[in-house]
Amino acid sequence: MSPVSARVGMVGGGQLARMTHQAAIALGVDLVVLAAGEDEAAALSVGSVQLGDPADLDALRGLAADCDVVTFDHELVPNDHIRALEEEGVVVRPGASAKLAGQDKRYARELLSSAGLPVPRFAVVERPEDAAAMAAEVGWPLVLKARRGGYDGRGVLVADGPDDVGEALAGGGEWLAEAHVDIERELAQIVVRSPSGESVAYPLIETVQSDGICVEAMTPAGVGEGEAEACARMATEIAELTGAVGVLAVEIFLAESGELLINELALRPHNSGHLTIEACETSQFENHLRAVLDWPLGSPALRAAAAVMTNVLGSDGGDPAHHVAGALAVPGAHPHLYGKRPGPGRKLGHVTAVGSDLAVARDASHRSAAILSEGPTG
Amino acid sequence: MSPVSARVGMVGGGQLARMTHQAAIALGVDLVVLAAGEDEAAALSVGSVQLGDPADLDALRGLAADCDVVTFDHELVPNDHIRALEEEGVVVRPGASAKLAGQDKRYARELLSSAGLPVPRFAVVERPEDAAAMAAEVGWPLVLKARRGGYDGRGVLVADGPDDVGEALAGGGEWLAEAHVDIERELAQIVVRSPSGESVAYPLIETVQSDGICVEAMTPAGVGEGEAEACARMATEIAELTGAVGVLAVEIFLAESGELLINELALRPHNSGHLTIEACETSQFENHLRAVLDWPLGSPALRAAAAVMTNVLGSDGGDPAHHVAGALAVPGAHPHLYGKRPGPGRKLGHVTAVGSDLAVARDASHRSAAILSEGPTG
Repeated sequence: MSPVSARVGMVGGGQLARMTHQAAIALGVDLVVLAAGEDEAAALSVGSVQLGDPADLDALRGLAADCDVVTFDHELVPNDHIRALEEEGVVVRPGASAKLAGQDKRYARELLSSAGLPVPRFAVVERPEDAAAMAAEVGWPLVLKARRGGYDGRGVLVADGPDDVGEALAGGGEWLAEAHVDIERELAQIVVRSPSGESVAYPLIETVQSDGICVEAMTPAGVGEGEAEACARMATEIAELTGAVGVLAVEIFLAESGELLINELALRPHNSGHLTIEACETSQFENHLRAVLDWPLGSPALRAAAAVMTNVLGSDGGDPAHHVAGALAVPGAHPHLYGKRPGPGRKLGHVTAVGSDLAVARDASHRSAAILSEGPTG
Repeated sequence: MSPVSARVGMVGGGQLARMTHQAAIALGVDLVVLAAGEDEAAALSVGSVQLGDPADLDALRGLAADCDVVTFDHELVPNDHIRALEEEGVVVRPGASAKLAGQDKRYARELLSSAGLPVPRFAVVERPEDAAAMAAEVGWPLVLKARRGGYDGRGVLVADGPDDVGEALAGGGEWLAEAHVDIERELAQIVVRSPSGESVAYPLIETVQSDGICVEAMTPAGVGEGEAEACARMATEIAELTGAVGVLAVEIFLAESGELLINELALRPHNSGHLTIEACETSQFENHLRAVLDWPLGSPALRAAAAVMTNVLGSDGGDPAHHVAGALAVPGAHPHLYGKRPGPGRKLGHVTAVGSDLAVARDASHRSAAILSEGPTG
């Protein structure tokens, strides 16, 4: 075997693991990926793959046996399994109690609000009456969120009245209701924290969502310096509060009222942070590895005036893998393909462009991503 | 199988293949590496590895059968084998006649000098008298170079008189003698050329050698604009002349006399170009892939005022993989480990730092590389 500086096990073989592997190569880290199938994004590009179900404790134990530390590319590992691994002496980063804040929306909301951090008004909804009582105070519509398992718009719906609530509850699971927020902008603040307590905050990112899926991320965000500083402060505080290790992404609403309200937490590299590969001194993927290994963190400073990332979502345009040459012809565009089987709405890749201002970067990023999604036009 | 944008076969599993794989991941390219052993630098980090001898034509055929195009991470593939593959219809880039310019110093010298390009005075040495005749004109010492197979200082020696020449010839092989050049600076000009004739020239790089091994590379090089333009022009002309596809690195001496003299050619990603990963819009590795696939080339423009790369050579300090945390503690340092078994003088990794000037970048790069080589001091 070749000498490696560390072995990191990552549960999940998606694009986050795939991009983490790019950083792992430079650091001499052997990234061992637990993938559910051979056709996952990371499975083809990573040297060390184990196949197994992330919800199978024995598969997790098998991964841990080969690694110095175990971390995650998604939120779908049962929290009890993480706890069981920790009790067996496995180093898991983030640990079970931190990871819970990204898995259990009720736990996260209660933790944040009891610490005095600003969250939208929320209530646990066990019966339609619970939602009605809340609506009597804040008005319809309410936003219903599945307590667990939601992502990319799944597990989130807008309820215009009690009937919608009844329908959601009938589907099973536990639900929260939140007051509807009139959103001015959606923001994402990424911080990285190491076990020894070192932390760094990336430049604030603004995101654009469509049907609950992030379609675009850019920096600088269109907010004032005061808001940007407040976001970095809040996210750093949340990292401490949750005991996060590695990347913590905090999704934040800037409400039309001017309030900053914390939306979701993710304790893993985050879609909004893909632009850090080209735009920052150290990518979120490299800093995630450095953090889970308790190595010194790298500078998150911007290397360009502006950066824009556009997601490549599956469409009827065929397979983005066939359109790479066209996408590369756009000056300044940096396409990233995930090697995933195409399907409508699937995240198949992204394109980042950096530039002297947002308009320049956005134009290159959009044009290149459109070619990947739709094929060359004209 | 996951969808891939292209399959590129790379002969050789060293650090060049390892870093090319980092670029391949983003492009959705499956890089299939033909490695001589499981412990080679790329073997652990790449998803697709074939084991085999690069001098075995059947191993090369096996690689080609799986790939859209075959390229190289070294010069050690017999040129006849490359020609045989081409005759069998395999797309090999660079092709046999171009690759020969990196493999056969006599061929390269004669090609360049007959095109009027500046090379040190040279002669083919079959007997000691041939060298003596040359020395009668240009004086001792002469530089003797093995016609084939030399690299990193191997196959190069300084002959102070006929006895040294006799000794070299007695060891077998074919030799050239070159006039000794009083060197002011050593330079490397990297250009990338695609089959359709597009080419880009990277910023000129200055290198520092010790015992024939590159220990440091930096940009900007300490020469005037006129020299830098001349180097870019010469390298672009050589790419055309040789029919190079992919990276062509031209090593150039700036003589104390002020002359620019072409030293060696390499038709593959080159040690002097590792700094392009952090310092340029598009790395040499990504542009090599784009070129061999005849995809549009990316901008080679600098993203920082200055960049310095320091090689990490094996020493008595143990395994650099054990010293990564220390190396990362140096602000601005970007370490790259190759996962190679340590050995004195082996290239085990490198550290690049970018900065506002060469002094800042050099300090960070040197300090971090020293920690990897020697372990933490004090």
